[in-house]
Amino acid sequence: MAITVVALAGGVGGAKLAHGLAEILAPGSLTVIVNTGDDFRHLGLFISTDVDTVTYTLAGRAHPKHGWGRAGETWQALSTLTELGGPDWFQLGDLDLGLHLYRTARMEAGATLSDITTDICTAWNIQTTILPMTDSPVRTIVETPEGDLPFQKYFVAKRCEPTVKGFHFQGIETAAPAPGVLKAIDAADLVVFCPSNPWVSIDPILAIGEVRSRVHRKPVVGVSPIIAGKTVKGPAARMYADLGIQPSALAVAAHYEDLLKGFVLDEEDASLSREINQLGMQTFTTDTLMRTEKDRVRLANEVMAFARAEVLE
Amino acid sequence: MAITVVALAGGVGGAKLAHGLAEILAPGSLTVIVNTGDDFRHLGLFISTDVDTVTYTLAGRAHPKHGWGRAGETWQALSTLTELGGPDWFQLGDLDLGLHLYRTARMEAGATLSDITTDICTAWNIQTTILPMTDSPVRTIVETPEGDLPFQKYFVAKRCEPTVKGFHFQGIETAAPAPGVLKAIDAADLVVFCPSNPWVSIDPILAIGEVRSRVHRKPVVGVSPIIAGKTVKGPAARMYADLGIQPSALAVAAHYEDLLKGFVLDEEDASLSREINQLGMQTFTTDTLMRTEKDRVRLANEVMAFARAEVLE
Repeated sequence: MAITVVALAGGVGGAKLAHGLAEILAPGSLTVIVNTGDDFRHLGLFISTDVDTVTYTLAGRAHPKHGWGRAGETWQALSTLTELGGPDWFQLGDLDLGLHLYRTARMEAGATLSDITTDICTAWNIQTTILPMTDSPVRTIVETPEGDLPFQKYFVAKRCEPTVKGFHFQGIETAAPAPGVLKAIDAADLVVFCPSNPWVSIDPILAIGEVRSRVHRKPVVGVSPIIAGKTVKGPAARMYADLGIQPSALAVAAHYEDLLKGFVLDEEDASLSREINQLGMQTFTTDTLMRTEKDRVRLANEVMAFARAEVLE
Repeated sequence: MAITVVALAGGVGGAKLAHGLAEILAPGSLTVIVNTGDDFRHLGLFISTDVDTVTYTLAGRAHPKHGWGRAGETWQALSTLTELGGPDWFQLGDLDLGLHLYRTARMEAGATLSDITTDICTAWNIQTTILPMTDSPVRTIVETPEGDLPFQKYFVAKRCEPTVKGFHFQGIETAAPAPGVLKAIDAADLVVFCPSNPWVSIDPILAIGEVRSRVHRKPVVGVSPIIAGKTVKGPAARMYADLGIQPSALAVAAHYEDLLKGFVLDEEDASLSREINQLGMQTFTTDTLMRTEKDRVRLANEVMAFARAEVLE
């Protein structure tokens, strides 16, 4: 029987591995549960950055170079906003705007984020199940010396400059997993933590209701988002450093210590394997940087082969 | 001293003559009061179609062929909406969207339509004062056998197909003229009714508070939006016919009978001049069709020369 996989993902890096998995697994056997802590309202629009990045990527519509936003994107609306002195700090492309307008209208008519995500997947013929972690508003707040900053303010407007002192997830206590989330985890043969930010992409998903305890019952393989002490994209390495932790694949593995049975790290970090093994998990080293679509498929195949050989019984 | 003019205008035709007047009058001596009865909320955006058309036209940013919307417009956001099965009946261009996003954000932060319009004029270096007729929501409702239709539903979604039985302006009783409207009329040497739809562009403006009675004290020249029984754009002729009135320059003049001292009609309609004179107004016939920017200036010059010679003492 086909192996059933749940992948937890944030934005660009997570979306790339999810895409690789989608390409190699049997139709219907992959569910991607996506962080919504970075969601925000901007100019009246309901924007769900990670869900959009995963959706665009799995639809083959993501910008091939940026990883976020859409291929063939244009910036006409933003140019008007700039001319008029409006708030133009968030990069809103025209194609992207169409989706935000669609989602906002649907939400205001009472649809949930997961309903809308399903309908977008149907319209774009995406075979993978994409689930937002929750339909309730959860907002990742970055604690800094300047005060608490909503994630997009920290990440985009402030360019990750304020020192990170901690995080919290507004609304997490009352947020329920979106329909299908717990069922998908329970039915999974394997859970994969995509190479996403542990602090602000994977942790919020794990913090929703019973998600962490359900994941805990499953074989889990993590893929390091940190290569040679750096992130390919995004602020994870900086966040580690701000928090007084040496950013490394080892630090990521340690972050998930109680959950992981296997960990995939870059060949540049091969020297960390032994220490990671000492945390009680199997390791696999390879080239984890996904430059091309072929890299995504290769890494996905390697993750699955490693899981079959070393993690699943 | 420079002559001071107030022009009342709806969308495309009105904007063209307003543009001609702006080109020939002394800086600071023209105020355009614009219909807001066609305004509506769509996809969460606050859209003010006639104010935008006048603004784009006076900023030199209007689409040269359509008359509405912007030069260099693209349709990427709308293409996404269509792909996703969203409401795509209203033509929302990407450049145009930027302005709607700007205005909607400002309105939600408490700014009025007239504040925002002033700021857009400043950003785009428009010397003419553009005033929405009111900052209160007024909605033109077209009464049809299918029931009452908001103007954009009738005009765009239903393509003017339902038979018009009448009109009313929701909210008109409590709407106050926008700041500056009455003052501009009181200070004007001349009021010009641009070649806009009498029923749904000029009538709503006149119906706000004391606008009609203040205009009544002033010399007024109207320009016919109907040429040889037809409108250049928009549903005015059809509305006349639906209401059982022969659409003609004469019908327009009669519509404003109590207000006009002078009326400008197309040379194709020269035979109607005598009957219009019998309504108690002077007439001037010329080529009123504005195909090019030169035509706008020529017609504006002719309107002003006629007003000076025959209407102003």
